[in-house]
Amino acid sequence: MTKRELLYEGKAKRIYATEDDNRFIVSYKDAATAFNGEKKAEIKGKGRLNNEISSLLFTKLASKGIQNHFVERLSETEQLVRKVTIIPIEVVVRNIVAGTLSKRLGIEEGTAVPEPITEYYLKNDELGDPLINEDHIRFLKIADKAQLDEMKKIALEVNTLLQAIFTECGVRLVDFKLEFGFSTDGSVLLADEISPDTCRLWDLHTNERFDKDLFRRELGSLTQGYEEIFKRLGGYESCTK
Amino acid sequence: MTKRELLYEGKAKRIYATEDDNRFIVSYKDAATAFNGEKKAEIKGKGRLNNEISSLLFTKLASKGIQNHFVERLSETEQLVRKVTIIPIEVVVRNIVAGTLSKRLGIEEGTAVPEPITEYYLKNDELGDPLINEDHIRFLKIADKAQLDEMKKIALEVNTLLQAIFTECGVRLVDFKLEFGFSTDGSVLLADEISPDTCRLWDLHTNERFDKDLFRRELGSLTQGYEEIFKRLGGYESCTK
Ligand SMILES: Nc1ncnc2c1ncn2[C@@H]1O[C@H](COP(=O)(O)OP(=O)(O)O)[C@@H](O)[C@H]1O
Ligand SMILES: Nc1ncnc2c1ncn2[C@@H]1O[C@H](COP(=O)(O)OP(=O)(O)O)[C@@H](O)[C@H]1O
Ligand SMILES: [Mg+2]
Ligand SMILES: [Mg+2]
Repeated sequence: MTKRELLYEGKAKRIYATEDDNRFIVSYKDAATAFNGEKKAEIKGKGRLNNEISSLLFTKLASKGIQNHFVERLSETEQLVRKVTIIPIEVVVRNIVAGTLSKRLGIEEGTAVPEPITEYYLKNDELGDPLINEDHIRFLKIADKAQLDEMKKIALEVNTLLQAIFTECGVRLVDFKLEFGFSTDGSVLLADEISPDTCRLWDLHTNERFDKDLFRRELGSLTQGYEEIFKRLGGYESCTK
Repeated sequence: MTKRELLYEGKAKRIYATEDDNRFIVSYKDAATAFNGEKKAEIKGKGRLNNEISSLLFTKLASKGIQNHFVERLSETEQLVRKVTIIPIEVVVRNIVAGTLSKRLGIEEGTAVPEPITEYYLKNDELGDPLINEDHIRFLKIADKAQLDEMKKIALEVNTLLQAIFTECGVRLVDFKLEFGFSTDGSVLLADEISPDTCRLWDLHTNERFDKDLFRRELGSLTQGYEEIFKRLGGYESCTK
């Protein structure tokens, strides 16, 4: 499979057409952004780490029955995926209070959430990705009730599976963000990426951060954190190689 | 019924104990506030108008089967109500895009909402009354699913009834905010106020504003707008007198 035109360049990835109408190539960039693009940096090695971790997690999820857009890893920074029309909702699942939830509710970061909280954010940089509810989604005609229920169901299943995967390697899954798309047959398919850019991952014992908060809050080396996650997940010895 | 201690002074009303353990007296103040208390003014006559309009609307709603805290009008600025423990959620129902919804979704004020949108805001001035969802409410243990469903059901019934009441007198019900409380028997009861402070009300033909946006956005005389609403609803000739 070879790259054709660049279709879309986002903050973290480039999407290319291929000779197959139903496949895209995703190329992970060495760019880090935070606070809706206000903070930016070039971080060498980040693209590789996110591509490797994402490939690995999508593969593990598929093996547990969670269909997703991942087809195969192509190189250190590239993967082949199913083409979808991205649904402009960021589905966030939270197991521990952190980040914007801590600010929204005035509750201390680190507080346990007994039953996972699901949130929907409108994927719209201009509007600052606002929190929305099911009525807003119906009004915006982004997804119907059945599609939204399906996204939420998958997100909660992914939460259970990722929690098991991460706990096994000594990592606490604090929260994460998923994106879904409509595949060519109209069904809802898990897409985008699952990486330390899109998950909050803390050491199970020390609460050391291994995720993008390292960059957002300048807590330490981002690549060291991501490398630690990749290593704990099995690294180059794992199933995707 | 006579006023005993002042129990609570809010931005728009004072709550007094009475000799009856199950009754409070609400005294409407001549204060106007907006933007979470940042903008403030003393507006003579506002307390009277909100007390009269609220008494009138609670009476009309009760006559249509919507139980609420209103017991009786006591004076131009005071009403007797059932004591409740306020549930710290502001339930907002929207029929037309305006205010924060317009900003949140980037959609022009005045756009029709085909099926009403319900929103929950955490009633917390310090946090700026943030939008929250059902999972946040469960996590905060503010109300259980059945109680929240009951609040939403009542809010949508109130919407239908208020739309009829206002349309009849040439007013468009754009949106409104309700508060509920737990009454002494534990059931959910509609409380607080329903007035041009808590509803957006536009002239059906000219879209002239008759609500607190007159004050928020300095569009004209607040008391003239509120007086117009009170007059159109029947004023001192109406059922509450
Ligand atoms: N399988 C897919 N098909 C089409 N688009 C996708 C797919 N997976 C992810 N995307 C989209 O690719 C774009 C680029 O990713 P990214 O750089 O993370 O963008 P953003 O800056 O919008 O977060 C995003 O809009 C993302 O939703
Ligand atoms: N029936 C009731 N019993 C107890 N409290 C009530 C009742 N109705 C309204 N309240 C509360 O009275 C307080 C005073 O009202 P208001 O001045 O509007 O306060 P706020 O500044 O919090 O909006 C509010 O906290 C409101 O929720
Ligand atoms: Mg992205
Ligand atoms: Mg109030």
